[in-house]
Amino acid sequence: MPLRDGRFERSLDEAMRRLNASIPFDRRLHAEDIRGSVAWARALRRAGLLDDAELGRIEKGLEEIAGEIRGGSFPFSEELEDVHMNIEARLTEKIGAAGEKLHTGRSRNDQVATDLRLHAREAATRLAALVEALMGALVEVAEREFGQVIPAYTHLQRAQPVLLSHHLLAYVEMLDRDTRRLRAARDAADLCPLGSGACVGNQFGIDRDFLARELGFAGVTRNSLDAVSDRDFALDFLHAAAVLMVHLSRLAEDLVLWSSAEFGLARLDDSVTTGSSMLPQKRNPDAAELARGKCGRVAGHLVGLLMTLKGLPLSYNKDLQEDKEPVFDAIDTLDLLLPVFAAMVRTMAIDSRRTAERLEGGFLEAIAAADYLTRRGVPFREAHRIAGRAVREAEKRGVTLAALPLEAYRALCDRFEEDLFEAISTDGALADKTVVGGTAPARVWEEIGRWKVELGRRGGGRSAAGG
Amino acid sequence: MPLRDGRFERSLDEAMRRLNASIPFDRRLHAEDIRGSVAWARALRRAGLLDDAELGRIEKGLEEIAGEIRGGSFPFSEELEDVHMNIEARLTEKIGAAGEKLHTGRSRNDQVATDLRLHAREAATRLAALVEALMGALVEVAEREFGQVIPAYTHLQRAQPVLLSHHLLAYVEMLDRDTRRLRAARDAADLCPLGSGACVGNQFGIDRDFLARELGFAGVTRNSLDAVSDRDFALDFLHAAAVLMVHLSRLAEDLVLWSSAEFGLARLDDSVTTGSSMLPQKRNPDAAELARGKCGRVAGHLVGLLMTLKGLPLSYNKDLQEDKEPVFDAIDTLDLLLPVFAAMVRTMAIDSRRTAERLEGGFLEAIAAADYLTRRGVPFREAHRIAGRAVREAEKRGVTLAALPLEAYRALCDRFEEDLFEAISTDGALADKTVVGGTAPARVWEEIGRWKVELGRRGGGRSAAGG
Amino acid sequence: MPLRDGRFERSLDEAMRRLNASIPFDRRLHAEDIRGSVAWARALRRAGLLDDAELGRIEKGLEEIAGEIRGGSFPFSEELEDVHMNIEARLTEKIGAAGEKLHTGRSRNDQVATDLRLHAREAATRLAALVEALMGALVEVAEREFGQVIPAYTHLQRAQPVLLSHHLLAYVEMLDRDTRRLRAARDAADLCPLGSGACVGNQFGIDRDFLARELGFAGVTRNSLDAVSDRDFALDFLHAAAVLMVHLSRLAEDLVLWSSAEFGLARLDDSVTTGSSMLPQKRNPDAAELARGKCGRVAGHLVGLLMTLKGLPLSYNKDLQEDKEPVFDAIDTLDLLLPVFAAMVRTMAIDSRRTAERLEGGFLEAIAAADYLTRRGVPFREAHRIAGRAVREAEKRGVTLAALPLEAYRALCDRFEEDLFEAISTDGALADKTVVGGTAPARVWEEIGRWKVELGRRGGGRSAAGG
Amino acid sequence: MPLRDGRFERSLDEAMRRLNASIPFDRRLHAEDIRGSVAWARALRRAGLLDDAELGRIEKGLEEIAGEIRGGSFPFSEELEDVHMNIEARLTEKIGAAGEKLHTGRSRNDQVATDLRLHAREAATRLAALVEALMGALVEVAEREFGQVIPAYTHLQRAQPVLLSHHLLAYVEMLDRDTRRLRAARDAADLCPLGSGACVGNQFGIDRDFLARELGFAGVTRNSLDAVSDRDFALDFLHAAAVLMVHLSRLAEDLVLWSSAEFGLARLDDSVTTGSSMLPQKRNPDAAELARGKCGRVAGHLVGLLMTLKGLPLSYNKDLQEDKEPVFDAIDTLDLLLPVFAAMVRTMAIDSRRTAERLEGGFLEAIAAADYLTRRGVPFREAHRIAGRAVREAEKRGVTLAALPLEAYRALCDRFEEDLFEAISTDGALADKTVVGGTAPARVWEEIGRWKVELGRRGGGRSAAGG
Repeated sequence: MPLRDGRFERSLDEAMRRLNASIPFDRRLHAEDIRGSVAWARALRRAGLLDDAELGRIEKGLEEIAGEIRGGSFPFSEELEDVHMNIEARLTEKIGAAGEKLHTGRSRNDQVATDLRLHAREAATRLAALVEALMGALVEVAEREFGQVIPAYTHLQRAQPVLLSHHLLAYVEMLDRDTRRLRAARDAADLCPLGSGACVGNQFGIDRDFLARELGFAGVTRNSLDAVSDRDFALDFLHAAAVLMVHLSRLAEDLVLWSSAEFGLARLDDSVTTGSSMLPQKRNPDAAELARGKCGRVAGHLVGLLMTLKGLPLSYNKDLQEDKEPVFDAIDTLDLLLPVFAAMVRTMAIDSRRTAERLEGGFLEAIAAADYLTRRGVPFREAHRIAGRAVREAEKRGVTLAALPLEAYRALCDRFEEDLFEAISTDGALADKTVVGGTAPARVWEEIGRWKVELGRRGGGRSAAGG
Repeated sequence: MPLRDGRFERSLDEAMRRLNASIPFDRRLHAEDIRGSVAWARALRRAGLLDDAELGRIEKGLEEIAGEIRGGSFPFSEELEDVHMNIEARLTEKIGAAGEKLHTGRSRNDQVATDLRLHAREAATRLAALVEALMGALVEVAEREFGQVIPAYTHLQRAQPVLLSHHLLAYVEMLDRDTRRLRAARDAADLCPLGSGACVGNQFGIDRDFLARELGFAGVTRNSLDAVSDRDFALDFLHAAAVLMVHLSRLAEDLVLWSSAEFGLARLDDSVTTGSSMLPQKRNPDAAELARGKCGRVAGHLVGLLMTLKGLPLSYNKDLQEDKEPVFDAIDTLDLLLPVFAAMVRTMAIDSRRTAERLEGGFLEAIAAADYLTRRGVPFREAHRIAGRAVREAEKRGVTLAALPLEAYRALCDRFEEDLFEAISTDGALADKTVVGGTAPARVWEEIGRWKVELGRRGGGRSAAGG
Repeated sequence: MPLRDGRFERSLDEAMRRLNASIPFDRRLHAEDIRGSVAWARALRRAGLLDDAELGRIEKGLEEIAGEIRGGSFPFSEELEDVHMNIEARLTEKIGAAGEKLHTGRSRNDQVATDLRLHAREAATRLAALVEALMGALVEVAEREFGQVIPAYTHLQRAQPVLLSHHLLAYVEMLDRDTRRLRAARDAADLCPLGSGACVGNQFGIDRDFLARELGFAGVTRNSLDAVSDRDFALDFLHAAAVLMVHLSRLAEDLVLWSSAEFGLARLDDSVTTGSSMLPQKRNPDAAELARGKCGRVAGHLVGLLMTLKGLPLSYNKDLQEDKEPVFDAIDTLDLLLPVFAAMVRTMAIDSRRTAERLEGGFLEAIAAADYLTRRGVPFREAHRIAGRAVREAEKRGVTLAALPLEAYRALCDRFEEDLFEAISTDGALADKTVVGGTAPARVWEEIGRWKVELGRRGGGRSAAGG
Repeated sequence: MPLRDGRFERSLDEAMRRLNASIPFDRRLHAEDIRGSVAWARALRRAGLLDDAELGRIEKGLEEIAGEIRGGSFPFSEELEDVHMNIEARLTEKIGAAGEKLHTGRSRNDQVATDLRLHAREAATRLAALVEALMGALVEVAEREFGQVIPAYTHLQRAQPVLLSHHLLAYVEMLDRDTRRLRAARDAADLCPLGSGACVGNQFGIDRDFLARELGFAGVTRNSLDAVSDRDFALDFLHAAAVLMVHLSRLAEDLVLWSSAEFGLARLDDSVTTGSSMLPQKRNPDAAELARGKCGRVAGHLVGLLMTLKGLPLSYNKDLQEDKEPVFDAIDTLDLLLPVFAAMVRTMAIDSRRTAERLEGGFLEAIAAADYLTRRGVPFREAHRIAGRAVREAEKRGVTLAALPLEAYRALCDRFEEDLFEAISTDGALADKTVVGGTAPARVWEEIGRWKVELGRRGGGRSAAGG
């Protein structure tokens, strides 16, 4: 163990060695680590701590190592603890003394913070594009199925008629907030901590702005003690991921409901449903259920990291090694789920016959009947009571509100007239929701158009994500 | 129960009534609810659904109600379920039929979303100012104690000398990120959902932009189904609060450590410490401990609300009633804690004798000894090993590195010369950390100045928060 | 402030006083605190630290205080910080010097641990009885509706026919595990920490076994440092509560689904459903939704307390003051919810017409068709494929499996015979599930009987809980 | 894909296939899966669904497969989704039609529940033994260092003198509760769900008691719908793991503090400490920090699974696939940590010189001074005030309470006499804590003996865990 040569008399306990080794998961940061080391070597050259020849050897050696890792031939070793020491040790093996100079003025504390920020930054950008691809799929179906009417639900009780497209666009709104949250997480990661040393700042006057530029960071961190122990960017990323998972879990729930025999509003495609090992008839919406289930996992990661950070004194503590796995797992979870959701949405078939049936039960017309009275001067609370009695009457007779005869209405309130029935029709109920955010067809069509332009402007999330 | 008159035959079960009643906690929203109702009534007037006289009666009635609530004479009733129905019923009691018109075209779904957004928006703004007041206290002490040197710790092991001011400014950086997170949460809340109805949008062409302006919102939500069920702004607020609590818990841990007999770096003032019911000598840092303990509470609220939202189908579900208490409790927790932290920081006394003693043990000079060699061309890894052996040697002899004789150093490496001892002095170790974010005194002094200007520019967080 | 008279020169900061005061929530422990103080005074008498007259005055004084609190006249004061000091100060006010002797050899650290254990112990017992009352309601409905057949769902897809009673008994099993978990939490609380002092044990040889007997504890804790800082019993209680909430949330989800228009299997009673402020027709399953929503709250409390306890050094730290509110809130949540659930279950009406309809779609007979072949020697995997093709064929023709003609079956496999149709009937599908835990009617009837006996034996949970 | 042959027309989407595949993590259950399949085949034989030759081929085939997996030659395939289908497909490949009969009357739903219960049961047993090994190490050090006195801390302020052994035994108490919690989790897992089918029970009258006996379960589950969807045993396991992690985090915190230069009470061995990549002098307590950090991870798993389970309708839903990884990771975390903790405790060196120094500051004698007066009839509250003033006086003079002259005491209260100084000596303060759980040396020695006997009786946790 290179770091034990000077200070320690006894070697590391074997169980301790395994506990301490982060290489099984932090090897994932190899590209960022090499990129950071190249930038560091160049900064050392500028500070006069390396000469041109040494810099050349380091750059060439790191390039070879990158190739070995990509090719699968790199000899990762648990003995060397982590990705940083694995790469540094291999470099020294390859190029000798120049390799022993690479870590001058640097600490793993600022090094790993840099690596993880680079990784989180890239992931946030990629995931935002995948979210936009899913938004694109939703908008596409909203356009394709424009005109389909379903019940809007509150409390899972049918409430009022709504355009299916309006329902789908609700998820586009949610997901759009997720893209903003992911970009805020990206920005939180976008400051360069390299040059903070172990905790009090670099001692060789290294050019930190140069480092930031080399690594594409928007700027540098401004306090070394904070820089080596700040994991807010990881928390922000996990928060963005957890809220996104909540949204996917809600969409998942709707899809599970819609594809049940009872709702029957949508049929998921064969390509995203699975069978049962026992029951031959089953077509299960596994992708949706997995998304719903994985919501717990990601929220668990968020609270887990909050707990890890609680009560840590300044500055770096080894507890911080627990920052990586939750972030990696959240990334992997979303990288897997988002394309499946886009495929699931795009390929689902809407059953027009069932959507129509669903509008008949549930007395969706009740509020329109109350509004009819309100428009004729009856105070709303009174109109609400009268419409409630009409529902009770219709329920007793086993008919819909549309089928309840006018005299039954007039027995409750004499302001009801024949034009009531037009007012409480589905078309009537849709047409008057003309406010911004309402389900009037013209308004929804406008929103579809707005989103198509907006998503196009963002560079076509769909193609960006290879959808 | 006004809402049961029409549709229901049997009255509510008593236990159910208690379960369902949110008035014990949502009464807190009374001011926002009244403000929203005034705006709503004005919008109804513009839409021709009220006449001037009715609007006048409603505005006057609501004003009286606001007075009754402030004065403690308002007859809150669990029978009336929530703050919305309590106020509406009282209004009708006062002004008759016009009161029954107030809820025309509105639902409690868009109403409560509006109330909570107003409340969260204001709290986020106020808490950000309180955070800035705490930042101000830290900067004040950083300036007052400029020149004090303490060990910087990693792994709670002494690492290198650092200015106390630099340590305090690390927290200023953390807290500054908190103000940004709180302001992002504020912005997330700053869209007006009113006019979304129960779920499909207002049916009377109400002017939603007018509503937004009346209530000081930056804009309107764009999808009614989303608007009545979106609680992202509450999650964002709780995330901001939870991360802030993590930062306070870290500062708390440092204060608990510093005020222990063992560290002895700081003495908390009598006014923020407490005694023991049994042990007469105790001066306990309760405020710091409570902050550390309350971190769990707020993080628990965040994950609790994430769980509540998981898997809810569109649109509004009663589960959402669980959104308020965690937000309220997070607000109250921070409203209590932040001023105490500012007082605790501002009044703490630093023990200069102890800070000096703390620098002597722990071999803080080791890296400077390695750097000495590095500057003389020894590759860093070799220099690191040599310095490690010097530490082992000093430890065996029971002396500090400064007291280890030159020949002992030269036995390890012949490049050590007499000027070593200046290089490894505390002043030397501070002076070369000149990079941005480093602990060199000039650099830290510059940061203190930068923060004073910045906090002044923000309107003097301290006075804003009444500190 | 009585505890500050000796050691402190300056008084407590006002904000600090409010932060520090636990009286707003720990006053709830008044009965336990008084009970503990009576026991303590008796133990002091036995140790010779009080005389008979002093003990008499203390007992009488505490009794009066209990009366004042019950009667609402007790002058609770935030100045006095907590319930312990409030009661002690009032006692001294009433009886003079004997009151100043009560706290001899005791600390609030062992006192509050005792109070909270008593409170948690009683709550766990009461809640277990309330859970049993809910189990009783489920068994009652299982008996009443015996014979009703519904689809069993997996993935919310119809899977196989099942007795409704069997479905209800699944929840009885879950809830029974909850009673065991609550009783384990009760046992965890059932050790007496009193006599542990501030942290190292009582110094007057107090009789701890006597204290345990007086307070009805099963025994005494065995290490004073652990005794004053152990909150495992609170974690165990919160775990039991959180898992119970998960179970209620699952039952809630089933009830929300069943009472939707789409499923239509059950109608919740008027007495446990609520209306909408806007939509006149709504009958919302609020109680079920609130239970589902409150699951997050209780799980949040559990993880919050885990976080609070993380990383605390021995022994007592003020962070532990955060132990009470989550426990109290979990108790209150369940005290509210459980009786409503029992009422909701007991009063729900099953719609026999809809249950029958639900069996027709979904190809529930598919596995029976595969089994038919299996019994005739076809390897199961082959039979599974053949039955899957039969489903596809029926789906194409738009018929049920029962309506698919024999020749269509025989085209897939020539071992199908006329008796197939009896084998795949609903009665047939129920009858062969005779294993323990299966849905064969005789088996389910037996389970209903077993539970009636078992719940009767436990003292009639229903009546115990006042159901 | 074998399960898609019958019902599905289109193949699975590639991204969906990857999302759905659990083989990357559930392959870990291979031994349990094979064990369960052998038991199942035997039960099929008893039910007449296999003949002897078929059973023989299945048993032989499964045995070969077990060998292939152990030897690393088994061709795991993501195409085959999970460990169950991988093994079944390989079996059929090996032995033909008999393999296609293995899944008769079984579902993956009851199969995977059985596998995971077997896995959790074994892990809980093993981990309990590892906890006992750690208890053994603590008792060993408590015996070895008997007589060392350190300050007991409350609020991290020195409170009273305590035996180091007493402090270590506090952790033995905590860990003992963990063994009970682990065993309760074991018992929760110890019921056999096999024979519950997909959800309504086995249709061939399989002998479930036979299955339970074959697999060593204590009994069978009693409701099929519950059996396939119950994950309480996983929650109980995660709760036990999370509380254990809290305890380890507390011990970790104490070790981090003790090994700091400031406390200096203990020195961790080279074999469990690590160096810094930058600072040559560092000896970091990484193992302790990692344990503290990993507390968040395990608590995150618990709350994650609670969230996953929230609101799932009966019975099996694919969300439940998320049950395995948190359990596996909690097992691996503890399997790694516990032996390192035992090694860390056993090898730590106590610094007697420092322990003695630590007793001098902090006015630990104050309560003994108050008790001195109490024993002479001064009411405790008055004695507490007087002792507090003595502390203030000593602090002003810069002396310890032992060094404060008698006249200074007598100026505060004339009942102080010369024998005060013996009463407030460290020996005196230890000697009178004779109650059960107190730190009087004889009492602590008795506890050490009790634990040695108890741990011996449990089969020598230490050797059981290979310590």
